[in-house]
Parts: sequence; C-alpha cells; structure tokens
Amino acid sequence: QSSITLGGTVDVGVRQVKNGTLGSVSSSVSGANSTSKLVLRGQEDLGAGLSAGFYLDGTIFADSGGTSTPFWDRRSTLSLAHRDGGELRLGRDWVPTHLVWSAADPFATLGIAGANTFRSTQSRAIGQAFGSTAAALAQSPTLRVANVVEYFLPSGLAGFSGALMASAGEGGSAGTGSTRGDGWRLGWTDGRLNLGAAQFSTRNANGGQDFKDQTWGASWDFGWVRASAGQRRWVYGSDRTTNTLVAAVIPAGPGVVKLSHLRANQQGASAALSANDASLTGAGYVCNLSRRSALYAHLARLKNQGGATFTIAGGAATSALPTAPNYFGGQSSTAFELGLRHDF
Amino acid sequence: QSSITLGGTVDVGVRQVKNGTLGSVSSSVSGANSTSKLVLRGQEDLGAGLSAGFYLDGTIFADSGGTSTPFWDRRSTLSLAHRDGGELRLGRDWVPTHLVWSAADPFATLGIAGANTFRSTQSRAIGQAFGSTAAALAQSPTLRVANVVEYFLPSGLAGFSGALMASAGEGGSAGTGSTRGDGWRLGWTDGRLNLGAAQFSTRNANGGQDFKDQTWGASWDFGWVRASAGQRRWVYGSDRTTNTLVAAVIPAGPGVVKLSHLRANQQGASAALSANDASLTGAGYVCNLSRRSALYAHLARLKNQGGATFTIAGGAATSALPTAPNYFGGQSSTAFELGLRHDF
Amino acid sequence: QSSITLGGTVDVGVRQVKNGTLGSVSSSVSGANSTSKLVLRGQEDLGAGLSAGFYLDGTIFADSGGTSTPFWDRRSTLSLAHRDGGELRLGRDWVPTHLVWSAADPFATLGIAGANTFRSTQSRAIGQAFGSTAAALAQSPTLRVANVVEYFLPSGLAGFSGALMASAGEGGSAGTGSTRGDGWRLGWTDGRLNLGAAQFSTRNANGGQDFKDQTWGASWDFGWVRASAGQRRWVYGSDRTTNTLVAAVIPAGPGVVKLSHLRANQQGASAALSANDASLTGAGYVCNLSRRSALYAHLARLKNQGGATFTIAGGAATSALPTAPNYFGGQSSTAFELGLRHDF
Repeated sequence: QSSITLGGTVDVGVRQVKNGTLGSVSSSVSGANSTSKLVLRGQEDLGAGLSAGFYLDGTIFADSGGTSTPFWDRRSTLSLAHRDGGELRLGRDWVPTHLVWSAADPFATLGIAGANTFRSTQSRAIGQAFGSTAAALAQSPTLRVANVVEYFLPSGLAGFSGALMASAGEGGSAGTGSTRGDGWRLGWTDGRLNLGAAQFSTRNANGGQDFKDQTWGASWDFGWVRASAGQRRWVYGSDRTTNTLVAAVIPAGPGVVKLSHLRANQQGASAALSANDASLTGAGYVCNLSRRSALYAHLARLKNQGGATFTIAGGAATSALPTAPNYFGGQSSTAFELGLRHDF
Repeated sequence: QSSITLGGTVDVGVRQVKNGTLGSVSSSVSGANSTSKLVLRGQEDLGAGLSAGFYLDGTIFADSGGTSTPFWDRRSTLSLAHRDGGELRLGRDWVPTHLVWSAADPFATLGIAGANTFRSTQSRAIGQAFGSTAAALAQSPTLRVANVVEYFLPSGLAGFSGALMASAGEGGSAGTGSTRGDGWRLGWTDGRLNLGAAQFSTRNANGGQDFKDQTWGASWDFGWVRASAGQRRWVYGSDRTTNTLVAAVIPAGPGVVKLSHLRANQQGASAALSANDASLTGAGYVCNLSRRSALYAHLARLKNQGGATFTIAGGAATSALPTAPNYFGGQSSTAFELGLRHDF
Repeated sequence: QSSITLGGTVDVGVRQVKNGTLGSVSSSVSGANSTSKLVLRGQEDLGAGLSAGFYLDGTIFADSGGTSTPFWDRRSTLSLAHRDGGELRLGRDWVPTHLVWSAADPFATLGIAGANTFRSTQSRAIGQAFGSTAAALAQSPTLRVANVVEYFLPSGLAGFSGALMASAGEGGSAGTGSTRGDGWRLGWTDGRLNLGAAQFSTRNANGGQDFKDQTWGASWDFGWVRASAGQRRWVYGSDRTTNTLVAAVIPAGPGVVKLSHLRANQQGASAALSANDASLTGAGYVCNLSRRSALYAHLARLKNQGGATFTIAGGAATSALPTAPNYFGGQSSTAFELGLRHDF
C-alpha cells in the first residue's frame, strides 16, 4: 500500500518598502505568508512497521514564474522509517536550528516581518564565515543543507522529539555549498506548551574555522493567545549575532492577528562593530477564506543602530559605505504588504 | 470542492529553412502547432460565488528536453474570483495585446507561419526600446510580463469581456524584465463574430520613454470558412512597426486548411529605415487524429524589402551588416515544417 | 482511452572513494542503483492500431535537490505508433549503443562499479572528438542525443527488435550538443538468451571528422546466474578505446549479488598513448525491501596502467600532468557505497 501526492502553495502579493530617505519602491512578491512551492512526495508501507518515503519540495517565485536553483531547494529526501525505531533520512533538508526558530515565529520567517530578516551577510558572523555575496548566503547552512544523513526519533516518546544530522563536505568549502557539518534538535510538547532547542555546527567555514548556529524556542497556547519566544545565535570567532524574538498570535474573527518583535544584538572585534544592532517590529492579520486559502496584510518597521544597514527586502538599493549617496547606516526601513495565499 | 489538473502538450516536428542565397538548414523543432508545455492548475470553491485558483504553465523544448527560464514562463498566476464581480489575478501572465493578436492568427503565432515572426529586435521600435539582444527581446513585455496585478470582467456581460493590467517595475528596467507598465483589453462576441482590442504601455523602456503595443483583431465564422484580420503596432519615439494580418481557416476532411498573410510596415527616423518592410505568407494543413492529437504541415515564405533582414527561425545565420558575407538585406526566407502534436 | 503517469525514482546513498596516495573523500550520492528521476508519460489510443504517446524523463540529483540541464535530460519524446507497423519517435532519447551496453551491465552503468566509468574525456577518442571539458562530454552523443527522428520495429517479430535513429545537426557542432549523426540497433531474444548490437556515428565531431560508437552485448539466464558480456568501442581517427565487460548476477536471499569486470584498452597515435589502459572490478549486493524499494552496497577497484588517470567519481581531485602534486597516472581508485533506492 502506497501513496504519491502532488501539492504545494501559490502565494502572491504586493509590497511597498520605504528605505529611510531613499524613497519607496513597490513590488510584486511571492510567498509572504507561505512559500510558493511545488511538493511531490510519497510513502510505501514495507510491512513489519517499516516504510520508505520520499519528499521533493521546491520554491516557486510565483510573481515572476521562476523556480530556484537547485530546483528542489526546500527539501529533497529519501527515508527509511520504522514505527518504533525512528527514521533514517538522506538528501537535502532544513537545518534543525531553522525548524525551532521558524516554529517560534508567527510569520514562519517569511514576508516583511519574518524572523529571518537578519539572516543576512550584514550579520557579521555569517558574512565572515561564508563570504559576503548573496550566493554565499544562499549556500550557507543557516536555512537548508545538502548531502545530509539524518536520524529522527520515532513519535510517541512521551512528547519528546529529536533528530541528529551530519552533512558531507565532499572535499569542498561551505561558502560554495559543500558544508561539512553536524547538528541536533530536541523538542518536547504537551500539546499546549512547546519547547525546542537545536544546534548546527559548520566545520569547514572560511579558514576552516567552525561556525555555530544555536537556537531555542518556546510557545504557550493559552487559547485566546499563543505566545512565543526564542533566541538564535550565529557565532564565528569574535563575531556573534544574537536574534531575540517575542511574539503572539491572537485568534480574531475568521483569522488571526500576529505580533512580533525581533532584536539583533551584534558583537564583534571592535566597539563600532558591536554597536551595529537592529530591531524589527511586525504586525499582521491573516483572514482565512477556507482551510487552504487566505488573504493577509503585514506591517513592519526595521530600525538600525550604529552603522548597521539591515533592510526589509524589496526596497531601494542601499550601501554600507559611509561616503555613498545611498548610505543606510542607522536608518529605518518600513514596509507594508498585502497578499493572497492558496495551498493546493 | 476543488480540483487540481496536470496537463500539457508535446509537439515535435522537423523543419527546413532556406535563407536566400545562404542555403538550407534542417532542424528538429518543438511547438510549431501548439507550444510544448507543462501545465499545473487548480481551483477551489470558497462558497458565496467566490473561488481561488492557480495556474502554472511552462514551455518545454521537447526536441531537446529543455525548459524555459523562468521555468513557468508562460503563466504563473494566483486568482481570487467572484461569479458576478470578476477576477483579480496576480503573477506572470500574457500581455493583453498578445491575446487579441494570437486569436486572429490561425497559426496562434507559432511555427514558421506564425504572426509573431516580426516580433524581433529587427522591428526597430522593439530593438530601440528594450535593446537589441535576444535576452532583451525575451524580457520585453510583447508576449508575457511578470509582477502584474490584473482585473478581469466576469462572464455573462452580453458577450463583452475585458481586462485591466498593471505591472510593477520594482525599481529596475524593462529590458532586464522589470517592466513598469499598464494595459487593457476589450472584446465582444456573438458566437460567430469576434472583436477585440488591447493596449499595453511600457513606462520604463530605454531612456525611461514609453513603448506602446496596440492591437485589434476580428474574426467571422461563416461555417465553411473562419476569416480573420488584425493589426498590431509597436511604437517607440519615431520608430513604428505596424503588423497587418489577414487569414482564413477552412475545414477540410479530418482537419483544417490555414492561410495567412502578414505584412510589417516600418516607419523610422529616415527614409531608409522606413523602407525596411517585410511580408510573410503562410499555408498549412492540420489533420486531426483525435481531439488531442494531430499531424500538421506548414509552408511559409518571408520577403524582405529595403534593408530589412527578418528571417524565419531555424535557418542559416544572417547579418544585417551590408559588408558581411551573409548579409541578408532584402532577401527571402522560405520554409517547410511537418510535425506531430499531442495534448495530455 | 488514454493514460498519464507521474513516477520516478529517488535513490540516495553515501560513498567513500580513495584515490591512490591522495587519500579518501566521503560524499553523498544520488542514483547509484537507479538514476533518481522524475518521469511524466502518457499514451492515447487513436483507434485502428494507432497510438500517440509522450515520455518526459529528467534526472534529479536527490542528494542536493538539483535537476539537470536540460531539465528532461534523460528522455523527451513524442511517438506515433502502429501495432504492426512500428513506432516513429521524435525528440531527445538514448543513443542505441547505450541501450545495448547498459543491458549487459548488472550495474546499469550507474554507481562506482558502472560500465560507463571510462566514458570520460580521458578516453582519447571521446576527448579528441568532442573536446576535453565536462560540458563537451555531457553533450557528446555517447549517452543521449537531442533532435532525433527514430523508427522502432514493432514487437512480435519472432524475438527480433530494432531501431534506426538520425539526429539533426541544425548547423552547429557536436561538442556543443548539435549532433549530426545516425545509428541503428538490432536485438534478438528467446527469453533466456539476449543478443544485441548497435552503432551510432557522429558526422560533425571536431574537424568535421566521424566519431563511431559501436557496441555488442549478450546475456544468458541460467536461472541460478545471469551471465553477460559485451564490448563497446569509441573510434576517432587513430584513437580508439575498447571497453570489454564480463559480468554476472546471482540471485541470493531477498536480492541479487552483482559481479563485473570491465577493461578499457586504448590505442592511440603513440605507444605511450596506447599503454594508457585501465580496468574496473566491481561487486555489489542489492537487498529488495519490496518490488519498489531496495538497500544496496557496492565495492569497486579501478586500476590504471601506463599514464592513464581514470578515477571513480567522488574522490580527491587528480591531475593528468606528471609534474602536478596530485598526478594520478598509473594509480588506483577504490570505492565503497551504500544506499537506498525507492521507485514511485
């Protein structure tokens, strides 16, 4: 007995971002509520509690018709699982730290208020460990990682869940996508309280030095509000960015109100670098049209401190160079987006 | 209640193109009768006359196994529709001018006799507005455009149909695919007579100047023949190309005979540029093997006037440089193709 | 009456390759037992013994989430077939020589022990005919070829099968994927004995010279063992590589044992080039978990002679330059891989 499922999401909206004194830019965006994606997955029951399964999941940039490189960038895995023994999984998958972090964020790290806004080469630990290009950021194991072997605990362990992960460097370097790393995740829930912690260490970042990605997250469902908090640290030598998140989701009418506040505290080799902090405050409403379709609206405001030049994606081009006409150090980015999401 | 459909077309054939004195080239071609494509689409009934729907449609180059960039190049849209209120659509879609133009062409703008043969950077208004490279032509909003918001009139308006479209430039330039534009389409039919008109204006073409794409088309179904005519103009500063089409589709045996004549009248800054006109005459027969499969054969002849160097795709490389050994000014291109089309 | 099928394979494993004195590298691999792939195909009965069908088949690099370029690299074809008259097929397909070669190899040319290990630009006939880059090898018609017209004999001809193939060069060169070639395949079977032979000639290899790819293969199923042998020659001017394969598949327990020995005998313009031979010995066990899922383990050892620098894929970078620190001439490559395969 087996099944194969083709599904996914198309989520498109419009966004306006105002980058300080540099003016506003309007754009069309994909995946601000749920990543636009194509998913093909299946499972086969092998008998005796064993099963085999595959999962292919790739981003669609639905505003422009594009797809990602690699095509199945979100997940491409093959699993052999046993009911009582757990799951062995091979391929490309989320890093465990992201899973804990995203679970604590009402915005699931997406859109203008998402808690991955400081996952940027402006976060010095990331930029120093993997390189300062957009390609290096995309390849860095702060979201997903290729060439992994994973083990997942079985379900039914008194609310505990957990995983181990190791990735093969294949003789390459982490900044070009050949991550040699290892990590773990541990979680517990009683249905209302959720606790999670995870770590992923990259052993072949620039200079062969370790890069550490550490996260904890917690949420409490009080019925009228689901409150959550979490912290994620990126550590590389003397550079460190600590993201701290507090958030709430409040059921209201046919949907939910989302509120979040995120702060990035940077520490570096000098007092000036350590002053490059920033915060992001977000609010949104998701109006469910059905279980699969929703309208949403988000508001967000990002404030840089010191010489920090973080931005909300989609605005005018900025520079970190103090003499540049579009220098953005210490400025603020504000944004609004409105969209429609449909799962299929 | 909802549905999801995976479908498409595979259409492959062989072609021979003779470019004047430069000899003949044989090739394998994809999509000469109907574009080879993969389509994934679905719809969800939201109740109260509302529905949500998505549409992903990407070209396949079935002769070589390739796909397009972006992958879902033909259409990638998300819609929220109301039975009486019309449809709001977001994403990447056809420009309205193409829809009117293609409806008037028996060859649906495809293959050696298709009415998009002069949609080329050789058409000066296009080349000047977007740049003279193949990439600029592909990005130009003369076929499809990304980052759009559209509104479509509901059906049932006494035969009238219509749409409004606007696209976000996102701070970029039209020649690189960031089109800031707006357009409309209006149509009317009584079942036998079809009338349509459309316009799409690009506001950020080269030099920030407007590029205008204007079309009208009409067809009359007399039973024994469906006659059609149309005109499409590309206007940019003093450059203008006017495509004029007359065509007929005649049912015959298990299929249809197709006939068309297309003329491109160019006007430019000088008499020499204004003399660069061209015409294309095409004929074909499509033999239906079933509702989904067909064999087809097309013949076409393109004649350049003045220094015009248009060609039918698939022939020997030509040059617009009078001193080049393969200079093609004023020469003719003749072609034949034979293929098989299968919708799935 | 018609059908459309979405299927494929996800196959991921881990591999360790030791390249002589250069040490070991561990990696994650895709498709060592069966190529990870996505297949979309369908057929329509047109009546009177006629049918139309399409087949789209593209590689997935399931260890990293990638796909191939072209996307449907394995096969992209459209067919018109008649029960008694045979099949006309257009598009991109396997070269006939590969089909005979792969049928004789228990490893189906895949993984560390696969019989395509010497299909490399190190095989001088290939390197000289198409160029010495990885891209030229990928484009060379030694695996698949685009822009083809094929004819296949119908089934039911007293055990005989056969095909003719021609590909359009489209005015380009073979090293960049525009192969002008032609070939044939002939086979016979009585159910236990299988015989096959094939040839594919490229007419526009480097210098416009012919490149010939010739194969024969045979297998005998004795019940307790399926023994096979085959030969494949690549010929270009004075350069020639002859691959000779002997192999066996022995049912054992819930799976099969696979054994193979492959030898590449090179002949070139000089005695030194003619001495660059190599051999590959492989063994494996495939343990079936179901008809669709299997665990497998492979061992292989490649031995270079003379200045040959062939390697098993996945090891440390080697050089063919005698003065380079990682010069690999005459060294050996040994490898082990372990994986899981799932067809869906």
